[in-house]
Amino acid sequence: MLVSDSLSVNSCGHLTIGGADVVTLAKKYGTPLYIMDEDKIRRTCKEYMSALTKCWGEKFLVQYASKAFCTKYMYKILDEEGFGADVVSGGELYTALKAGFPSNKIVFHGNNKTAEELRFALEAEIREIIVDNAEELELINEIAAELGKVANISFRIKPGVDAHTHDFVKTGQIDSKFGVALENGEAFDFVKSALSYKNIKLCGVHCHIGSQIFDPEPFAHAAELMMEFIAKVKAELDFEVSELNLGGGFGIRYTEEDDPRSVYDAVKSFTDVVRAQAEKYDLSLPFISIEPGRSVVAEAGITVYTVGSVKEIKDIRTYVSVDGGMTDNPRYALYGSKYTMVLPERAEETPTEIVTVAGRNCESGDLLGENIHLPAVKAGDLLAVLSTGAYNYSMASNYNRVPRPPVVMVKNGVDKLVVKRETYEDIISNDLI
Amino acid sequence: MLVSDSLSVNSCGHLTIGGADVVTLAKKYGTPLYIMDEDKIRRTCKEYMSALTKCWGEKFLVQYASKAFCTKYMYKILDEEGFGADVVSGGELYTALKAGFPSNKIVFHGNNKTAEELRFALEAEIREIIVDNAEELELINEIAAELGKVANISFRIKPGVDAHTHDFVKTGQIDSKFGVALENGEAFDFVKSALSYKNIKLCGVHCHIGSQIFDPEPFAHAAELMMEFIAKVKAELDFEVSELNLGGGFGIRYTEEDDPRSVYDAVKSFTDVVRAQAEKYDLSLPFISIEPGRSVVAEAGITVYTVGSVKEIKDIRTYVSVDGGMTDNPRYALYGSKYTMVLPERAEETPTEIVTVAGRNCESGDLLGENIHLPAVKAGDLLAVLSTGAYNYSMASNYNRVPRPPVVMVKNGVDKLVVKRETYEDIISNDLI
Repeated sequence: MLVSDSLSVNSCGHLTIGGADVVTLAKKYGTPLYIMDEDKIRRTCKEYMSALTKCWGEKFLVQYASKAFCTKYMYKILDEEGFGADVVSGGELYTALKAGFPSNKIVFHGNNKTAEELRFALEAEIREIIVDNAEELELINEIAAELGKVANISFRIKPGVDAHTHDFVKTGQIDSKFGVALENGEAFDFVKSALSYKNIKLCGVHCHIGSQIFDPEPFAHAAELMMEFIAKVKAELDFEVSELNLGGGFGIRYTEEDDPRSVYDAVKSFTDVVRAQAEKYDLSLPFISIEPGRSVVAEAGITVYTVGSVKEIKDIRTYVSVDGGMTDNPRYALYGSKYTMVLPERAEETPTEIVTVAGRNCESGDLLGENIHLPAVKAGDLLAVLSTGAYNYSMASNYNRVPRPPVVMVKNGVDKLVVKRETYEDIISNDLI
Repeated sequence: MLVSDSLSVNSCGHLTIGGADVVTLAKKYGTPLYIMDEDKIRRTCKEYMSALTKCWGEKFLVQYASKAFCTKYMYKILDEEGFGADVVSGGELYTALKAGFPSNKIVFHGNNKTAEELRFALEAEIREIIVDNAEELELINEIAAELGKVANISFRIKPGVDAHTHDFVKTGQIDSKFGVALENGEAFDFVKSALSYKNIKLCGVHCHIGSQIFDPEPFAHAAELMMEFIAKVKAELDFEVSELNLGGGFGIRYTEEDDPRSVYDAVKSFTDVVRAQAEKYDLSLPFISIEPGRSVVAEAGITVYTVGSVKEIKDIRTYVSVDGGMTDNPRYALYGSKYTMVLPERAEETPTEIVTVAGRNCESGDLLGENIHLPAVKAGDLLAVLSTGAYNYSMASNYNRVPRPPVVMVKNGVDKLVVKRETYEDIISNDLI
């Protein structure tokens, strides 16, 4: 029922996260409140490190996809756990560097990086830029020349793999704004042109086949195609691509219906294929990188709200309104994403009602979920939405001028505030007149 | 083609807004950039004031719906134009007060106001709280008692009018998180209980039937039902509700297909009905308020981007990627909203291509529009999205840690920066460790 092993119920019947009483934390910090289990994040990091080490050895880097949840403290955790990071903007890069994260473990993604961002990345001497398209390649070469540097790059390939997932998060197919296609020869032409640029060093190829994928098979299939491509490049251009970046997309549990395979299974499925393909085509074993984001943080986080009103509309539905909503979690409004919800003060009580949980924002689409099973709920109750560690804080807005909630991390049962609550004054701080 | 009378083309073939050259402003302030025509905002304010004055006389207040676009400077414009304002959060109220906006012209909306917000509103002595539900009414009575005040309230009624609009913005029907229903007697019970509270003064009734409504008829129909309700209350409870708030929802032009009726027509349609109903039921003419938001600012604003790449996928589609996206305009990702787009440097050139305009964010759903008609476009071109004055700046986020664009206002052809561009440092300013 609680979907994450971060969560439990204590002797008071209260929900706990990382051993800390959620009711106590809600009282201490107020609601809405993001709480994350730092130990869980670290456990997941260790799972990735151990799976890669067992299945592949030493030539790998796990590059956390920052967009899932990006704060300075997160980078400190990642660094201590031996992770790299992928960033998709100057803002994420800035945050990582300000946290003291090693720049040589950062790669920079995106379908439309600006010239300023590329310059920032090159000056910071990050590990690699993952190039999206030919215009960008040319721009990087120019900027690198200006700076007297050689830019390490990988480039993003659409391998044409269908990851059986939601339209919004299916990115490996040819109809995508990201990357260049394998099937129509674009990717091959890209390698040729990359090899011709003086201030570019082509290191690797990257693909990302989608998000929230449970089945290891599409990863294995993508790895197979990418290795075939590396073989083709070696055969025809006499150049061996040395790095293979298989992206992210590893699924997590939002509800009981979600059934992701273990990190180890996912990793083993593609490392086996890479090894077999290397043998088949007589290639060196590549340096492998992967980019989990959601799977590192989602199950480690919850959001705690206070119920403000319960509105029963006879024969239609019951709206339970909370003091947050699409401003701190726009995923239901955007994708109809499903979540599990719990009343932290009565976490073991059996659900008896089916309700719609609505946000506080002035918009009909501001819902957090429909057909949510809860015990009888009343104004003043706390309500927790589970598995909100990814794409909640990072996607939060100030719509309706609602301040963004703080982020509390729990480690060994002890809480610490890592991002403080926004104030009204913060929200108007850029208003000049 | 340009959808708004703010926009024109100058002798260089450049798009102008409020007489200012958009290309010049993009160079001066960088992109992405929100530009708004202050003269257009003021013209629209004057249209509302004049329509109400002509159709109704002096007993009215136009309460701008702040959630459409909320900055300190906006409240200064509204105050000078004789408008009131509706706010839906402590953050909006704070912004208004900081701008020196008179608190006695502010009403406070929302389905789930917190106790802190209600206290803030009562202490600031705003004009009215628009009460959403019975629990809130009780809470307001309690807080008002504590403060030794009497709270002026209206309450929100679902009149059951179908405004023939998108599901997400249809709010007058019974299945809504907002307000209490007319048809099942809830609204009537609400009046009875409001009259029994010592620290509550019931002033008015409010309804809001949806958004982006072109046809005046639903407003007239809502007014008819609301006046019937006022008559019933008078007849059965011997209490005459003195204020009628008919909400907002007046449509604007996003594309050429949109054909909203004039402000005057909309206002006349409901004032005629209110007058007729007052006569029919022998009621005093109520004080009328309305709450336009989108229609005051949407057509006055544009967003200017720089194109970073053009990706033609043969036989599928062409992606034009710009340096903003769902972070500054989430409306396509949320609702599939349609916009008109123009290349400001060649604003009169005939469209020859049909493209998908994609944002820069690391998400497949990050699009600004599909099937967009544009002239041939290349990296480095400016691209303007029209009618973005509402629900763009206000809904912007820092997803991918992208800083929010600045807001420039143009008045008499002269530009001024009213909200400055966010910095990376702003984004991490609440990270404590």
